[in-house]
Amino acid sequence: MNIPKSNFSDWYNEVIYSAGIVDIRYPVKGMPIYTSWGFGAIRKSFAILEELLEQTGHGQMLFPLLVPEDLFGAEGEHIKGFGGEVLWVTQGGNETLERKLAVRPTSETIMYPMFAQWIRAHTDFPLKVHQTVTIYRHETKATKPLVRGREVYWNEAHSAFRNEKEAEESIREGLQIYSEFYATLALPFTALVRPDYDKFPGAKYSIAFDILMPDGKVLQAATIHNLADNFAKVYSIQYDDEKGEKHYAHQTTFGLSMRCLAAAIGVHGDDKGLILPPAISPIQAIIIPIPGKEEKESAAVDAKAKEVKAKLEGAGIRVHLDCSEKRPGEKYYHWEMKGVPLRIEIGPRDIANKKVMLALRTGGKKPIDESKLVEATRDAFAEILKTLEEKAKKELEGKISKAKSMDDLKKGTGIFTAGWCENQKCADEVKTETGGVEVRGFLFDKKKEKAKCVKCGKDGTLAYWAKAY
Amino acid sequence: MNIPKSNFSDWYNEVIYSAGIVDIRYPVKGMPIYTSWGFGAIRKSFAILEELLEQTGHGQMLFPLLVPEDLFGAEGEHIKGFGGEVLWVTQGGNETLERKLAVRPTSETIMYPMFAQWIRAHTDFPLKVHQTVTIYRHETKATKPLVRGREVYWNEAHSAFRNEKEAEESIREGLQIYSEFYATLALPFTALVRPDYDKFPGAKYSIAFDILMPDGKVLQAATIHNLADNFAKVYSIQYDDEKGEKHYAHQTTFGLSMRCLAAAIGVHGDDKGLILPPAISPIQAIIIPIPGKEEKESAAVDAKAKEVKAKLEGAGIRVHLDCSEKRPGEKYYHWEMKGVPLRIEIGPRDIANKKVMLALRTGGKKPIDESKLVEATRDAFAEILKTLEEKAKKELEGKISKAKSMDDLKKGTGIFTAGWCENQKCADEVKTETGGVEVRGFLFDKKKEKAKCVKCGKDGTLAYWAKAY
Repeated sequence: MNIPKSNFSDWYNEVIYSAGIVDIRYPVKGMPIYTSWGFGAIRKSFAILEELLEQTGHGQMLFPLLVPEDLFGAEGEHIKGFGGEVLWVTQGGNETLERKLAVRPTSETIMYPMFAQWIRAHTDFPLKVHQTVTIYRHETKATKPLVRGREVYWNEAHSAFRNEKEAEESIREGLQIYSEFYATLALPFTALVRPDYDKFPGAKYSIAFDILMPDGKVLQAATIHNLADNFAKVYSIQYDDEKGEKHYAHQTTFGLSMRCLAAAIGVHGDDKGLILPPAISPIQAIIIPIPGKEEKESAAVDAKAKEVKAKLEGAGIRVHLDCSEKRPGEKYYHWEMKGVPLRIEIGPRDIANKKVMLALRTGGKKPIDESKLVEATRDAFAEILKTLEEKAKKELEGKISKAKSMDDLKKGTGIFTAGWCENQKCADEVKTETGGVEVRGFLFDKKKEKAKCVKCGKDGTLAYWAKAY
Repeated sequence: MNIPKSNFSDWYNEVIYSAGIVDIRYPVKGMPIYTSWGFGAIRKSFAILEELLEQTGHGQMLFPLLVPEDLFGAEGEHIKGFGGEVLWVTQGGNETLERKLAVRPTSETIMYPMFAQWIRAHTDFPLKVHQTVTIYRHETKATKPLVRGREVYWNEAHSAFRNEKEAEESIREGLQIYSEFYATLALPFTALVRPDYDKFPGAKYSIAFDILMPDGKVLQAATIHNLADNFAKVYSIQYDDEKGEKHYAHQTTFGLSMRCLAAAIGVHGDDKGLILPPAISPIQAIIIPIPGKEEKESAAVDAKAKEVKAKLEGAGIRVHLDCSEKRPGEKYYHWEMKGVPLRIEIGPRDIANKKVMLALRTGGKKPIDESKLVEATRDAFAEILKTLEEKAKKELEGKISKAKSMDDLKKGTGIFTAGWCENQKCADEVKTETGGVEVRGFLFDKKKEKAKCVKCGKDGTLAYWAKAY
């Protein structure tokens, strides 16, 4: 790494390319290749998320990519919200299609006509599904790999319930799932109810997870929407209750994208490169044999390295032995840059002492007894996670400040709390005057605190503000 | 199930819907919903395949869905082969795109321009990648869920090598991977080199796995292609050897789709419904508590059922306890239809005897000691796999016959061996006259046997023939 992390934007672009996260040279704007190190970390992350969804009763399905125009347009606000960003398939072979097909920007309009078929009676609830797919948005803004692009790898959960109360419980379940998910990535967040003008098109309200990046901007890294019965009315998702009376279903939807990796890279990385949380690193421990002065010594080291590898693999740890021709120092540099959380060094002296050396990517080296290898490795992972988490929490806390005036908003960086009259006009003016500081919303489920609007001075509510990606 | 398997086509349509494999009511032809039981089985299957690919050094990546027309059209034969079937994105929001974008029917033209960037020197080999994605074909033929559709879930592996020899080794590796994969699904196959006119557009030769379905037609269930340096020349995938001389890379590609599940459903199912091989069944063992006459007995059964569930889960077995209100017989029927390979019954008498009852979906019931639960469950899975495999092999062998004349081809069913002059005209005439029997190819890597052409009587080679999906 030639670029220090203090130069965050350039550092990010360098590290995602050097570490093999993405390659942006594919000739369609905003459609990078997710190369194997990056896609491996994304898949590990998503496997954690998918497991959390399965445990809470969401069944994994796969719905089509393409939506006929009439289905897509049925929910008026929804199409208004996405209309300008939709890619359309209009041609099949050399023929023009009779109905053009939207390439999904999200799957409400694909799934809900099916929900209407599946839901008949009150016994059909809850209906909880999820899928991991790519979605498409014809972005006109500048793209940034993993952050903003035209092809987004994500997981979306969609559920339907009998009534408002059950939908509200689902919202809390979603918050819990995403909180557990981000805990395994050691990423603190703010979960905020977005202002009405910024909610998901067609939703009653939207909650979004914001993660603070090192440049002081926040990254929206997951969303949870209460759709009430808005879509149910459009797509006729109705059921008979115990008395035979008809009601509309209440729905929720959650989404989380490959941005989770952008956040992990941004928050945890350092001047040497990435630091991946153990749960999502494609390789959790890299073994580096340190050759001896004599061939015999080196042979013993190699044999021991293989033994250590087998032992860790047997314990379900993702481990790799680097027996390339490079010098140990070069190997250190390479795997540090890629963010492997733990390095295990084995040299002739270690063998003599029945020890191996653990070097944590978050800092610190310690010799451990070979007999305690698996246990010590697991402890090291826990320590790394804790170190990352504490550091990230401290950074976040240090960058949340109270802004009492427009000047505070203009001069500070990070996340601000400041009063807002809940009028979009004021929010827009603040954004223009501060060069981007915008209302991110209110804490969910907390009593709202009164505060004078930072722009107009009228009565208002304490809100969260930040520049955002 | 109301339809016997002897009426295969109707049975298939009923079982895939009733068991929750797919729902075909989505209003775009050939684009079904993969519902959670079906998609679960597909994901389990693909996880096995992905693991086999990773073990042989193929890195998982994710490449874009959309291909600019100029890239897609660069390999002339390739576009000719796919041209009529490609879906095109022409519109973004309300604008017409400057270049239209093909929705991938397969990813050679997407990946290989990147391969050209990644490969510079002989040290960059082997390059082995794979991805699991959906591909699109604007099918004009009748669609059939999991068999032929417009949206196909598949895994494709693409690799590049120094020379022909290494590419040939990769072909053998592919054969090995797919053979191991189909062994875990207990599905026997023929691996055949397709006739030249039927090879993958742009390939040197293609090998395809055919699986015999109960109606006597074969299903192409995986393909392996040697691309030689055909694509390398078009996309400039070149490298410098040790002497600094430039060469084109040699390439191979493998593909396997959700058809693997269609084959497992077709080959293994019976009049009661599906029989899923244990490795791919979302639930491997279903526990059914048998209530006693008194409440106390039933409570003891429920407690024991939970204990058994926890024990099996702890051993990594996918198990579910059905404690719904339905009668045991109804539960049997339900889970048999869904193809769960093993049922575990627990009643008051079993508790008294410290036993549980194992009922294998392939037939047979046996009481086992509770203390041997995990071991006996694993043994039962192995027995089920073996039973499925033996039955499928016997069926396949019984349906391969030697055809000496056009009459044999017309009257028989299944797979035939018969001579062919290797002239497409004869193959086409046979297909027309027999109502669909076509040349499937030659055994790979086996000495070709001479035989007179079944159509024209001229000198030829013994080939495999069958009707195909």
